[in-house]
Amino acid sequence: PAHRLDGIPPTIFTQMSALALRTGAVNLGQGFPDVDGPASSRARVAQAVEEGANQYAPGTGVPALRRAVAEHQRRHYGIDLDPDTQVCATTGATEGIAAALLGLVDPGDEVVVLEPYYDSYVAMIQMAGGVRRPVTLRAPDYRLDVAELRAAVTPRTRFVLLNSPHNPTGTVLGPDELQAVADVAVEHDLVVITDEVYEHLVFDDAVHTPISTLPGMAERTLSLSSVGKSWSFTGWKVGWATGPSYLVEAVLGAKQWLTFTSGSPLQPAVAQALREEAGFPLELARDLQSRRDLLCAGLGAAGLPSRVPQGTYFASVDVEHLGWEDSTAFCLALPERAGVVAIPLRGFYPDSDAGRHLVRFAFCKTVPVIEDGLARLAAAD
Amino acid sequence: PAHRLDGIPPTIFTQMSALALRTGAVNLGQGFPDVDGPASSRARVAQAVEEGANQYAPGTGVPALRRAVAEHQRRHYGIDLDPDTQVCATTGATEGIAAALLGLVDPGDEVVVLEPYYDSYVAMIQMAGGVRRPVTLRAPDYRLDVAELRAAVTPRTRFVLLNSPHNPTGTVLGPDELQAVADVAVEHDLVVITDEVYEHLVFDDAVHTPISTLPGMAERTLSLSSVGKSWSFTGWKVGWATGPSYLVEAVLGAKQWLTFTSGSPLQPAVAQALREEAGFPLELARDLQSRRDLLCAGLGAAGLPSRVPQGTYFASVDVEHLGWEDSTAFCLALPERAGVVAIPLRGFYPDSDAGRHLVRFAFCKTVPVIEDGLARLAAAD
Ligand SMILES: CSCCC(=O)C(=O)O
Ligand SMILES: CSCCC(=O)C(=O)O
Repeated sequence: PAHRLDGIPPTIFTQMSALALRTGAVNLGQGFPDVDGPASSRARVAQAVEEGANQYAPGTGVPALRRAVAEHQRRHYGIDLDPDTQVCATTGATEGIAAALLGLVDPGDEVVVLEPYYDSYVAMIQMAGGVRRPVTLRAPDYRLDVAELRAAVTPRTRFVLLNSPHNPTGTVLGPDELQAVADVAVEHDLVVITDEVYEHLVFDDAVHTPISTLPGMAERTLSLSSVGKSWSFTGWKVGWATGPSYLVEAVLGAKQWLTFTSGSPLQPAVAQALREEAGFPLELARDLQSRRDLLCAGLGAAGLPSRVPQGTYFASVDVEHLGWEDSTAFCLALPERAGVVAIPLRGFYPDSDAGRHLVRFAFCKTVPVIEDGLARLAAAD
Repeated sequence: PAHRLDGIPPTIFTQMSALALRTGAVNLGQGFPDVDGPASSRARVAQAVEEGANQYAPGTGVPALRRAVAEHQRRHYGIDLDPDTQVCATTGATEGIAAALLGLVDPGDEVVVLEPYYDSYVAMIQMAGGVRRPVTLRAPDYRLDVAELRAAVTPRTRFVLLNSPHNPTGTVLGPDELQAVADVAVEHDLVVITDEVYEHLVFDDAVHTPISTLPGMAERTLSLSSVGKSWSFTGWKVGWATGPSYLVEAVLGAKQWLTFTSGSPLQPAVAQALREEAGFPLELARDLQSRRDLLCAGLGAAGLPSRVPQGTYFASVDVEHLGWEDSTAFCLALPERAGVVAIPLRGFYPDSDAGRHLVRFAFCKTVPVIEDGLARLAAAD
């Protein structure tokens, strides 16, 4: 294999889902819901296939999808976008990340990025020859340390790769944290690439504010999101990149060679979901919040106390007090010990020791599945 | 934008399809059929969405798809593959190319490749830091020159990127040409990456032989194909990489970060097409052959004589005798002059002057569309 991938292990999600299949464990690892999104959107796929949406879509996405994304940004955040030049469909936010980094980052460019890292960030920054400059979110509260953020910036820094609501910590960056990132970006003339796939999945009084809405940020922010998490269609892999045309063009410049286009019959259904099932994500967030509470309460009762996350699909637990050497050892033993799969966060913190004992559990599963998992954890030795 | 894309223009297909839309011209440019593939496969998408194939598929593809690809390779070519380690789904062959080159090619590695180049090859070889070593297929007969092939290899050569049936020339490499490539690959210990998306679309007595079936080649060939062309579903963007596990793993190593996975509800339908509509590509090839004949005869009658291609969707014409400076000028004027869009091949030949006056016309369109295009061309001044 090429050296650009040296030292990058296979994605942990594939490993752990395979382990769940092999052992028959309850899979609280990889983040995908086990109940699908709106029936009307599923029906729209069938209609699209029947109506002939089976040949290449434009690389930027079908016009109906681009318009629906622009409307979504306006309705939720008051953001105005030209659907023809400021919106580009991607094969999930994963392709958005890949295309943004390959399309923008030159070898040696520094990218300030929140640790723990979603694993594709590390791989793609390395593939682009970029240098990551970590800002670490630490247990127990996983807040952004503004002094650490400022210290991470050097004259070679050109990008901030943000993720809020943040996977895996569940942190939703608040007004002061976002303002600190914006201040740094404006001061040092940085471009912010922001992964907002959990934008609608926030709980209690947490509010997701796109950083592009802060003063001075619209012209320097590339935003990535997708239908997957908010509408419970993670397998459709339809996402979008939005922002000023020079950044969207850079995404398209790389993306046209990565996949050219994808999911022609899914794109009209995603447009339908964004428009006609606009209320779905809020309902989902309400429901997810109660499953979060169920999971966190049960983890606590099983001796695995977790901070209650503000957003996403995930809650994390520090297992140091249980005497495990690290979270990888804990997670590799867990299927046998308890019949449950969870994700070790040690690998999400390659630049510090802060994740050594952290384990992530997903609550995007049904109540019976979560209860089954909790019962197994409670019964484990 | 990042320098890895310096000098790479946007894909010509997007430009020319946009031109067709803008001018109302008959689009004989971008290669997509205007009749969809089998109804039973379309119905299978609807069923998959209903049955819940809406969450992440494994990165390698759902097991049914991998098994169907392995069966396809055995049925058509007698190739034996382990569906678990020697098959990986991709987002069309385009992602296969991108992932293969990013996963295998190190900066400075030389890649022997047939000019004219499908445009993603040039872009992705450059993005991987590879150096292309052209072997040029020249009008009028576009055959592989074995002496030129041998001369292209240097001590830094590590890969051959092959494409047969070849887009845009329609050449199907014959036994002697394939043997020459195999000899060179074995002699110099090269890996062959072969794009075979038109594998079933060959005409008259042309036969497509996968180069992996030649002695000594199975262990050094990564084969790429897709459902798009052979089953007339170019928009589904489901393809596959097959070969020895070390090469398939290298594809997966890059691909997991490019898209992770895609098209969950489409994958079962592609498996269905490969199995239950196995006869479709042969019927399509028969029908395409008559449309090829219609196009080539009409082009000749319109003063645009074309070589009759052995395979693919495309026929090429040399327009030098018409007095145009180059094929780009010809194609940019064609919508206005004749109400037709075609693809200039000048850009497909960046390393020689051999494509300066070549223009590609697609015959994967319906008979009335081809007839309309031909009537317009005949009527043009
Ligand atoms: C792309 S697979 C991982 C799914 C996910 O987003 C997660 O579990 O964090
Ligand atoms: C990926 S768009 C181009 C379609 C095609 O293969 C061609 O026209 O050559």
